[in-house]
Amino acid sequence: MNCELCATKGETLLWRGQHCRVILVHDTDYPGFCRVIWNDHIKEMTDLPAQMRTELMNTVFAVESAVRDVMQPEKINLASLGNMVPHLHWHVIPRYIDDKNFPNPIWAAPLRNTRASNISDIHKYLSASIFEKLNS
Amino acid sequence: MNCELCATKGETLLWRGQHCRVILVHDTDYPGFCRVIWNDHIKEMTDLPAQMRTELMNTVFAVESAVRDVMQPEKINLASLGNMVPHLHWHVIPRYIDDKNFPNPIWAAPLRNTRASNISDIHKYLSASIFEKLNS
Repeated sequence: MNCELCATKGETLLWRGQHCRVILVHDTDYPGFCRVIWNDHIKEMTDLPAQMRTELMNTVFAVESAVRDVMQPEKINLASLGNMVPHLHWHVIPRYIDDKNFPNPIWAAPLRNTRASNISDIHKYLSASIFEKLNS
Repeated sequence: MNCELCATKGETLLWRGQHCRVILVHDTDYPGFCRVIWNDHIKEMTDLPAQMRTELMNTVFAVESAVRDVMQPEKINLASLGNMVPHLHWHVIPRYIDDKNFPNPIWAAPLRNTRASNISDIHKYLSASIFEKLNS
């Protein structure tokens, strides 16, 4: 099995817990885009015991809260798709009124061009905020 | 305020609880596509108290489980976007290997044509399965 989410190479890790981790997605169109990845190779939420589903979602919501605090987006989009990589993960996507696709989903055809955002400092603020929400 | 999710007109209701409801989406490309709608006009998951987030997600997961049982899809996609209608709702989308967009998100450009599925009987089986999971 060759799963790109079982591997962790090249990730910008923001937070790691016992069962899942949070990484920063390097997408300059969506600064602050994070991904919450379950460590084990599980396909669907309902393949997890209920208690672990709640643990994963609490991590997703902590990330949502951190992204709202740090990035002040217009809207948060949450999605768990996994059609190509059936390894449980959640996209936490900050949306901005002038982003490439707003108000359409980020997977739709682009509506406009955007300038690449500098995301080099974001990870410090996001990881501090996520840590505060999950470890305090 | 004129919110189409505050209104309930024309919905095919599958289940209604104290705080949220489940409807069948009339999309013949994705038979079994359900939507879980929070009754109050709330924008983000993190605008809800933690206990209510868990209640909503437990409903989403019951619907996921029912859709898996009844429709036997290749994959489940879960998404809460709300860019156009900022009233908290979850898409529970069964994906099939030969559906219009698989393995891409349903919001991407179509990859193939599909025959319209007959969804007239689905709501009976889905509502029975959701009821069993949430009310028993």
